[in-house]
Amino acid sequence: MARILTGIQSTGTPHLGNILGAIQPGIELSEKPENEAFLFIANLHALTSIKDAEIIRENTRSVAAAWLAFGLDTSKNTFYRQSDVPEVCELMWYLSCFSPFPMLANAHSFKDKSENLSVVNTGLFTYPVLMAADILLYDAEFVPVGKDQKQHLEMTRDIAGKVNQLHEDLLVVPDSLISEKVMVVPGTDGRKMSKSYDNTLNVFLPEKKLKKQVMSILTDSTPLEEPKDPDTCNVFNLFRLVADDNSVAEMRKNYLAGGYGYGHAKKELLGVLVDKYEEQRNRYQELMEDPQTLEDALKTGADKAREVASGVLTRLRDALGY
Amino acid sequence: MARILTGIQSTGTPHLGNILGAIQPGIELSEKPENEAFLFIANLHALTSIKDAEIIRENTRSVAAAWLAFGLDTSKNTFYRQSDVPEVCELMWYLSCFSPFPMLANAHSFKDKSENLSVVNTGLFTYPVLMAADILLYDAEFVPVGKDQKQHLEMTRDIAGKVNQLHEDLLVVPDSLISEKVMVVPGTDGRKMSKSYDNTLNVFLPEKKLKKQVMSILTDSTPLEEPKDPDTCNVFNLFRLVADDNSVAEMRKNYLAGGYGYGHAKKELLGVLVDKYEEQRNRYQELMEDPQTLEDALKTGADKAREVASGVLTRLRDALGY
Repeated sequence: MARILTGIQSTGTPHLGNILGAIQPGIELSEKPENEAFLFIANLHALTSIKDAEIIRENTRSVAAAWLAFGLDTSKNTFYRQSDVPEVCELMWYLSCFSPFPMLANAHSFKDKSENLSVVNTGLFTYPVLMAADILLYDAEFVPVGKDQKQHLEMTRDIAGKVNQLHEDLLVVPDSLISEKVMVVPGTDGRKMSKSYDNTLNVFLPEKKLKKQVMSILTDSTPLEEPKDPDTCNVFNLFRLVADDNSVAEMRKNYLAGGYGYGHAKKELLGVLVDKYEEQRNRYQELMEDPQTLEDALKTGADKAREVASGVLTRLRDALGY
Repeated sequence: MARILTGIQSTGTPHLGNILGAIQPGIELSEKPENEAFLFIANLHALTSIKDAEIIRENTRSVAAAWLAFGLDTSKNTFYRQSDVPEVCELMWYLSCFSPFPMLANAHSFKDKSENLSVVNTGLFTYPVLMAADILLYDAEFVPVGKDQKQHLEMTRDIAGKVNQLHEDLLVVPDSLISEKVMVVPGTDGRKMSKSYDNTLNVFLPEKKLKKQVMSILTDSTPLEEPKDPDTCNVFNLFRLVADDNSVAEMRKNYLAGGYGYGHAKKELLGVLVDKYEEQRNRYQELMEDPQTLEDALKTGADKAREVASGVLTRLRDALGY
């Protein structure tokens, strides 16, 4: 049994990029019999950038609903809201005292912000230590990381190593789990799909609104009757991520043949999204209208998480003198 | 009723400087009927510099024993160990997200360390935020501060002000309480008495060891028979802080008359220390040999403290979306 820990950003309703890049691979990993998955909604991290209580709550709810709608098994796994285990903040303090200041000052994520320091809050500087606490509090063995998170996991390993100089094996030093297939999902403008680029497809929207997003996908101005290059087209590049192989081959043929417009392709893409995710879209709506069920699922997860957390924290308190 | 909060360093057994400069004035303040005092042993802060569990525990015990030996009334006041209210770490995270990075980078306490950054841990950088949490978690109205702590209280006020921009009156913005009589206690070498100068008089030591410290007080080499200047003498400057007015006047006369050696003066100083603090020295020893009584006193304090803390934290969680 390998314990795998995944932090889930809670910066907004999950979009297609999140679904393909995080939710589906995360659930896949959690379903393997040899894995025990801890998955948490990182709502404490959200405070570094969001200062609106209603948005923080709403984001947490919609992220939870999305993962549950996609079938995360909360009895096999531990699915919780970060703030429901405030022990992580206590651990963060302990770890701070073992984290060299220059390590954080030299982090890419901080250097990127250092041109405009006056608006940088201390949470933005120290959040890699909170991340380390998120991981180390659960004796996690593996953490799936993308390229941009690799340095944070290295820091976690460094910090754990420094604590372990006090007593061997106090903390489990986690390994990274590099995903074999890295899914890059293009947004409606061809850049990586991201909320901050405002180029997302929000699969959980009502069909009319989703349609508007799909229709807004940028294409070139090749006339309808002319042949088109599928491989440089944003619509096709999205379609092939969600449609079955036959449909993709069919659409490629249509592009190359000419007489097939981007409007047709967009309509097909919308159709696939709505059909493919019908069950998840319905389940998501049900959950969003039933906050108690969401709350209950998260509370159950928090109880399980706290049990593990309190064991690890007791071990550490003991070793540090608390 | 004014709520006054005092953090007590737990970096070692309190020495005469701590007794005269912190314990006695702190207890005096706590005894005024119009005051409600929260006093906590800052053992979480200690981790920024001490990584030895037994020392952290021992320091906490001896600080607690010293305050109790000097008669702190734990039923009127709230006396607790910082780590027994881990909610302070949760509040620290919230406050971090409202604390501008440059504010901490420009703190005197951090700048003093910035020449040797490679050994500075992140806790040393962020501890003013923990201090803010220590204060704001209890709706403290007044914080007695010395000159070196003034900037930290200013930061606490700034952070509280930023949080209060979300909702007015979320946090109580504390005022500083500048002590009217600032007590500077010289050490055995004439510099300010401080553990880090290794120039302390440890009133709680067994008499033989205390005698050794008193005998080590630096004096000049004026021969016994010659008159001496009391005002430039370390022994006299210590004596006048602890002896009654008559004895001080007497010793001054002896110094000026000649035929009175520093050895005589040291013996008198030792006598006053042992007599004056007889009861406290005994009580301290009893408490140090009775960890359960100490533990019970601190637990009772922690329960009282947590009740206040959980009220404030709930108010804040609500406002932030947790």
